[in-house]
Formats: sequence, structure tokens, C-alpha cells
Amino acid sequence: MGEFDLKAYLSRRRQVVEEALEKIFPTTSGLEKKVVDAARYSLFAGGKRLRPILCLAAAEVAGGDIGPVLPAACALEMIHTYSLIHDDLPAMDNDDFRRGVLTNHKVFGEAVAILAGDALLTEAFEHFASCAKEGISPVKVVEVIRIAVKAAGYRGMIGGQAIDLECENRKVSLATVEYMHIHKTGALLSASLEIGAILGGGDEARIKAMRTYGHHMGLAFQITDDLLDVEGDPTLMGKTPGSDAAKNKMTYPALLGVIQSRAAAKEHVESSLEALSGFGEAAEPLRAVARYLLVRKG
Amino acid sequence: MGEFDLKAYLSRRRQVVEEALEKIFPTTSGLEKKVVDAARYSLFAGGKRLRPILCLAAAEVAGGDIGPVLPAACALEMIHTYSLIHDDLPAMDNDDFRRGVLTNHKVFGEAVAILAGDALLTEAFEHFASCAKEGISPVKVVEVIRIAVKAAGYRGMIGGQAIDLECENRKVSLATVEYMHIHKTGALLSASLEIGAILGGGDEARIKAMRTYGHHMGLAFQITDDLLDVEGDPTLMGKTPGSDAAKNKMTYPALLGVIQSRAAAKEHVESSLEALSGFGEAAEPLRAVARYLLVRKG
Repeated sequence: MGEFDLKAYLSRRRQVVEEALEKIFPTTSGLEKKVVDAARYSLFAGGKRLRPILCLAAAEVAGGDIGPVLPAACALEMIHTYSLIHDDLPAMDNDDFRRGVLTNHKVFGEAVAILAGDALLTEAFEHFASCAKEGISPVKVVEVIRIAVKAAGYRGMIGGQAIDLECENRKVSLATVEYMHIHKTGALLSASLEIGAILGGGDEARIKAMRTYGHHMGLAFQITDDLLDVEGDPTLMGKTPGSDAAKNKMTYPALLGVIQSRAAAKEHVESSLEALSGFGEAAEPLRAVARYLLVRKG
Repeated sequence: MGEFDLKAYLSRRRQVVEEALEKIFPTTSGLEKKVVDAARYSLFAGGKRLRPILCLAAAEVAGGDIGPVLPAACALEMIHTYSLIHDDLPAMDNDDFRRGVLTNHKVFGEAVAILAGDALLTEAFEHFASCAKEGISPVKVVEVIRIAVKAAGYRGMIGGQAIDLECENRKVSLATVEYMHIHKTGALLSASLEIGAILGGGDEARIKAMRTYGHHMGLAFQITDDLLDVEGDPTLMGKTPGSDAAKNKMTYPALLGVIQSRAAAKEHVESSLEALSGFGEAAEPLRAVARYLLVRKG
């Protein structure tokens, strides 16, 4: 068995996701064109498509095909994109750039940016629902919608963002930072894997394994993200290093130091790999993603 | 058959809805408390509960019980409330008061208000989904979610709001104003009735009748709302009359004059009543709501 080529895999899967997104969220000629164009601006602004790719990979680990799962994978990317548009708003993080290009409100104005985010969040549920047209049982579709709500709502991502805003310019404990990250980014990452596993027809053990992998992978992702802000290469990151520190954001390196943060990331990567033991070659993409976090440069 | 007591009916149903909302959206003690409290502030700020009440009434016209439909009725109110919070933001309509009390962002700040709206929109889908726990078939639940997305997203309410923003301070045609209202308020009102009819087990004819009733009732509602802004009593409205005119909003009275606007409202009420012909006493609440629009004072 040769080395798994993660770069080629991600590039192929990114293309599959981009094409599906283009198909389900096309431009329009109606009076609502501006808000759709604004939503599309951020939806096609060069995202890594990590959540949909993880969702599809989990569906394959569960023994399913990616086709019927694609609408849900796109829905997860739409939720992620809406959260970025709203997080960047002047009232929130007030960011002018994201992935190297102007943020949504800098191009379309605040009102349209708020509506574009609202539209992406709303339409996401259409695409979870439309998995039922792809032969997936409505019972599973309803289950997946409830998982998505829990991960994206105040018990997940929105709660994490609220905590993040509260903690700015305040000294908080490592436990609080971890709680914040588990909600703000971890919940949707973990849900992406769980949703993929359910829609892919996985049994309870596989669904649980995907959840556990997602939990640890999500934390490793966040810690290495924080580390990049300290050590990263701005040309690869699409944002300026040091921006977290400049905003007094509580980060892992700020709380633990760089060395201990690296050790924590490594530990979470190992735990995520452990969750995949016994799943053979189907889980190779997920293993490669987790390992990659320890050497990522952007 | 005595005269239908609409006031008593609405008051009873409002209480049923309030109790259900309290149960499904309780306060929390977690770190995300602030965003939940902000969402609850607007959710319990004295709304008329028109959408959930119409949804429940349609379920009864369709021959169903209101119990299993209540979560969806609450979800519709949550979507309506999120739209008000976001519409009031400084970047949008910049309103300080709503229903006589301070708007969400005036109390909690813009960031929390945006998140509170996002949370209400997200959690709404949990409650559509949870109708499946009440014995309603998941197939119907999935169908209802797609109808809600269409009514709330860029093909409906969000599109209408985008058009409204575009039209401010511009001279537009009556057709554009009608198109805007059909999207901005009509779509969700009409969907409330359609969703109620589907979840109540209605056949195709009843579902279509509810949709038609909702369409005309929604337009009559909007026209009489515009008329109130010209002629209304501020103590009953909870907002200042003349505020549409002050913002150069394109309204029916501004385009048609008061007399013709009244005639148009009457015509739509009559069309809405026609859609109910043959449904007997079960449709009496819907008839009373439509008739009331012509004499409303707030």
C-alpha cells in the first residue's frame, strides 16, 4: 500500500463539492439577485471545503456512496460560510479580509451581508431535506437535521461565538477556551462526520467512532490554527499572523505556550487516529487529514 | 350559530402558543446564556402569534389535532421573531422600538442581537423536525421543512427584505411593491397555513385552499398594515404612525391612495373568504381573522 496522496484526494473532493454547490446555489435574475450574489461571493471565496469533505469521507467509512450524501455535505459548507459572514461583521470580529479577499460586508454592505448569511443558513436546511430525494430514508434525514441544529445553534457554534465575544479582552481559563472551541468550531466539524456516517448507513459503532474522531480532530484543528497565528506564513494563510494576539483573543499558545500547545495537538491527533482503528483503508483519508494537522502551514 | 368570538379565540390560542414556546425555548445557565436570553427577550416581547395561530387553525380545517402541530407552529414564530430582530438592526431598518419596547440590539448590543436571530432561525428547524416525535410521518416533516425554507429564504422572506432595502428612497411600481410584500410577509404567512394543513393531514384540495387563503389574507394584512401607518392609533400599534413615510418606504397608500388601498384590502379579504367556502365551521376562525383585517386598529 503506497503513501496516501492527501493533496490529490482533497483537490478531487473539493472539485466534487464545488460542482455540487454551484448546482444547488446558482445565481438568479430576480430582484433578490444581490443577496444571492453576496451569498455566492462568500460561498465561492476559496474555502477548503473541510466540512463537506469530512462528511463524504465519513459516509464512505460507513459503507455508503457519496452521491446521496452530497446535498448534506453542501449544507454543512453553507452553514460554515454563513457563520464566517456574520462573524466578520463590524459588530462582531470586524474583519476586512478573509481568505485573502475582502469580507462580505466590505463588498456588499452590512445589510446585504447579514441577509446573505441568513439566506445560506436557511437554504442549508433545504439541502439536508433534499437527501430524502436521493433515496435516503426521511427518518435519517430528520435525525440529521436535529444533529445539524444542535451543532450550529446555541448549544453549538452560536453558543461558542457568544462565549468568544464574552471572553475577548478577558483572562479566562484553559477549560473555558476549550469549551469555547468545542462549541465554536468543534461541534460543526464533529457533526459533519456524524451526519456523513448516518447518511452513509453506518451502524451505531461507526457513527460513534466518527463523532469521537471529529471531536479530537476538531480540537487539534483549533490548536494548530492558533499556532499558525503565532508561527504561520501569511502568504499561505490568507490572513495576517498575530491578529488573534492583537485582539487579545485567548488562544492555546497564549495559555499553554507553543511547546505545550504542540504537544496537546499531537495528543488529540493520536486520539482521533485511535477512534479509526479497525476501519481499514476506507478510513485512510480521515487518518491523513488528522496527521496533516501536525505539519500544516496554512 | 352565534357570532364567532375572535378575541377570545385568539387569546386562548396565544396562551397555548406562549406555553409551548416557553417549554421549547427555556432559559439556560450555560455560558451561552446571554444569547438565549436575548432570543427570549424578543420571542416573548408581546407578539400576536399570528403565524402559529394560523398554522394551528389550518391543521384543524384539515381535520387534525393541534398537539402534534404545535412544535411547527412555534418554529414559525421563531422564524418570524428572528426576522424582526435582524430587520431592526442599525444596518437594516435601524429601529429603536418594536411593539412598544426597545429592540433587541438596543438592549443586548448588535453582536448578541445578530447571534440571537441566528439562534432562533437555526433552532426553528429543530422544532419542525421534532413533529416527527409527535406521530407525524417523517415524509411530511421533510416536506414541511422544504416549504419553510422556501418561504423564509431568498425565494421568500429574505428576498422580500432585500427588495425592500433596494426600494427605499426609490420610486417603484405597484407591481414591485406587491412582489416585495408577497415575499417579505406573504410567503411565511401562506406557508404557516400550508404547513398546518399538511401536518393536520389535509388532502391536496385543502392544502391548496389554505395556500390561497394565506396568499390573499397576507396581502390584505400588509395593505391594512400600511393603512395603519397612515391612520393608526399609536397606543394600539406599539410603533409610531408615519414611520414608513418618514423612511420613504413604498406603501400601498403612497402608491394607490387611502381609498383605493382600502378597496384592495377588501378585495383580498373577499378572495381569502372564497377559498374557505365549503369548509364549514372548522374554518370559522380563519374567516374571522380575515374579516377582522378590515376593521383592525392595531
